[in-house]
Amino acid sequence: MHIETADQAQLKSAEATLSARYAELQARGLSLDMTRGKPSPDQLSLSDAMESILNGNFKADDGTDLRNYGGLDGITEAKDLFAQILEVPTDNVLIGGNASLTLMYQSALYAMHFGLNGAESAWHNKAAATPVRFICPVPGYDRHFAICDHLGIEMLTVPMTDTGPDMDAVEALIDSDPSIRGIWAVPRFSNPTGVVYSDETVDRFAQLGKRAHSEFRIFWDNAYAVHTLNADAPQLKSIWAACEAEGTLDSVLIFGSTSKVTYAGAGVAFMGASTANLKALRHHLSFSTIGPDKVNMKRHTNFLRDMPTYLAHMEKHAALLRPRFNKVNDVLTAELGDDGYAQWHLPQGGYFISLDTKPGLAQTVVDMAAAAGVKLTPAGATFPYGKDPANSNLRIAPSFPSVADLETATEVLAVCVKLATVRQKLNG
Amino acid sequence: MHIETADQAQLKSAEATLSARYAELQARGLSLDMTRGKPSPDQLSLSDAMESILNGNFKADDGTDLRNYGGLDGITEAKDLFAQILEVPTDNVLIGGNASLTLMYQSALYAMHFGLNGAESAWHNKAAATPVRFICPVPGYDRHFAICDHLGIEMLTVPMTDTGPDMDAVEALIDSDPSIRGIWAVPRFSNPTGVVYSDETVDRFAQLGKRAHSEFRIFWDNAYAVHTLNADAPQLKSIWAACEAEGTLDSVLIFGSTSKVTYAGAGVAFMGASTANLKALRHHLSFSTIGPDKVNMKRHTNFLRDMPTYLAHMEKHAALLRPRFNKVNDVLTAELGDDGYAQWHLPQGGYFISLDTKPGLAQTVVDMAAAAGVKLTPAGATFPYGKDPANSNLRIAPSFPSVADLETATEVLAVCVKLATVRQKLNG
Repeated sequence: MHIETADQAQLKSAEATLSARYAELQARGLSLDMTRGKPSPDQLSLSDAMESILNGNFKADDGTDLRNYGGLDGITEAKDLFAQILEVPTDNVLIGGNASLTLMYQSALYAMHFGLNGAESAWHNKAAATPVRFICPVPGYDRHFAICDHLGIEMLTVPMTDTGPDMDAVEALIDSDPSIRGIWAVPRFSNPTGVVYSDETVDRFAQLGKRAHSEFRIFWDNAYAVHTLNADAPQLKSIWAACEAEGTLDSVLIFGSTSKVTYAGAGVAFMGASTANLKALRHHLSFSTIGPDKVNMKRHTNFLRDMPTYLAHMEKHAALLRPRFNKVNDVLTAELGDDGYAQWHLPQGGYFISLDTKPGLAQTVVDMAAAAGVKLTPAGATFPYGKDPANSNLRIAPSFPSVADLETATEVLAVCVKLATVRQKLNG
Repeated sequence: MHIETADQAQLKSAEATLSARYAELQARGLSLDMTRGKPSPDQLSLSDAMESILNGNFKADDGTDLRNYGGLDGITEAKDLFAQILEVPTDNVLIGGNASLTLMYQSALYAMHFGLNGAESAWHNKAAATPVRFICPVPGYDRHFAICDHLGIEMLTVPMTDTGPDMDAVEALIDSDPSIRGIWAVPRFSNPTGVVYSDETVDRFAQLGKRAHSEFRIFWDNAYAVHTLNADAPQLKSIWAACEAEGTLDSVLIFGSTSKVTYAGAGVAFMGASTANLKALRHHLSFSTIGPDKVNMKRHTNFLRDMPTYLAHMEKHAALLRPRFNKVNDVLTAELGDDGYAQWHLPQGGYFISLDTKPGLAQTVVDMAAAAGVKLTPAGATFPYGKDPANSNLRIAPSFPSVADLETATEVLAVCVKLATVRQKLNG
């Protein structure tokens, strides 16, 4: 039955069947959680050798005592290694603590209140009280939007396409609104749609620095830079190389971390930025820290070592993640097929599957799933201010539950989607 | 020879002798550093058992996977342990990353721009553009002053006495200046004077919340809470208990860390605050982090365990620090004695010896010592804006160099103090 062509009798019959299935699922007393992109315990255990890897040697390669104070922006071997992930020169790397989120927050905070180019360059013009605005491709990452919200930055949305954000819309906004100071981007395996930005999209991002305000910054959150599910996953063009070619290196801040490489809560964050941007960031950072944990950095560089070792380690993650993503996709395909209930696709990497219901149904599906013991990310979470205008996007996080739990949880989700859609049709 | 009663002939003779000694010291080509309160490698090695202490067990006591995301304010066993150092209830503890400096910066930042009691409570009143001021007891800690400087907070000084800050001066400032929003305090083994605040001083601090602005906060940096050099070192009255008795718990933020307990660069920071303050801090923190490193927290709670274990560990630090502090004091006593050149005293804990030269000589002494290969903390560093009005305070950090190096470095310092003083007398 295709939902668009079904007649009343078919819809009524489907409603009865689905209601019975839903009641049966509800009766099972499930308690399943597909809310957040957390690695599973098996994934975390892949890095347990890190814990004793230093073997009593607490010296950096240059002789620095890793245990003592010092090293505002990290040890050289960490810069060397993560420079390859960021695809920037070692001198343009800054190592942080355990969260790239913190580096993003700090970068936005400093740009807002203190300036990345002297105090006068601060986005927040106290005298004029003009708004500060960011462009947010949607659906996107809730914690990005939360940073803007906390800092009082207004958010304007542009839609995601299969090749990245709608760059015509991005350019039009920048050309028409002089208050825009930034844009969020998750360029490889976009959160949540799983899209890899095309080369043309990357090039057009690199050109934004020429048409935007001089203090405009691209927040290039390459969270899933090497987080592929398949060997043939699409590559991402280097934004650094593209900006270098355009002469716009000051317009981009590139972020990454090992949160989904080693330990989600005890990894190493890093960023790449132009010499001028880094100088400002180091200056502002120096007031709040003497330096991040160098012992943990060295555990990481000893463990992840070089790109072949790093990528071989990521393949172990993929081996654990692939069956989970496949299971979700298989259940969705079996349940929803081509019957017009929803749009989704199986990504080639990253941590999410994005599913769009018919307009107006996302909240209903989340509520119905919750009532059947399956926790989904709140409807609207992938949009600024938590408001999805179409009320249709759902973010599915397959990494943490077991394959068996995912099978059940996805069945619940699919039944909820179908039942909600059928009821909408019947009532519409 | 006492410098105040010496005649011209005595001064001239002393000048000749000291100049010869200084030239001899200079000729040795020394390279010694007494600038910062860094633990020595021997001290850091006291905690090396931490590295493998988890032994593959990555669970918190409540079953939380330490490796994964989560836990904005820390694991319960860390709160339990560090609550005893902070002398606050476990529920009033927040665990941070590797630096209490970061917690202090964040607290001041949030209070300044975002408010600890709703947005309207932010210190920074954009509309009125009134100044925000802090009281800074001097001499004090340069990094405290730097936080104020970065946030645009004006600093007013009050002198330190043998019982803590001059509380008459503190109260008079608060009564007369409605723009005061905070005060810095290092209450036990004050940086750099080594003073332990008296019970009366603590009580008067606890009363400040009654006479100050409702958003006034005491930044109680108890950095050396258990960092005694001797078993009979003076105790500090609990500020939490004192504020509780006065009904002023919202007026105090208490900070601590293991930077000088375990690893200076890879320890655990913590703070104690009222329920209302903590609620606001957790809210603001949630935009920039999912939570600090729980694996490192657990290493610490396994290693430091309970107060008897913690204090026994601190006694090992004291055993390494005592000979260093004694050596500096012995050389200063032998060289300067009661001859009126300078004021200092041997503290009972902490990381510094504060020495006051005759007014106008600190910069000269620092320059002369540098020219003889001994690096001292810059003159003025212990004052806001780096400006010591009397140009007389020097901060000596004995923890890092060896005892032999300290003997030489302190001799250089003492000769510089004497020579500078004699020359000042001769020229005055």
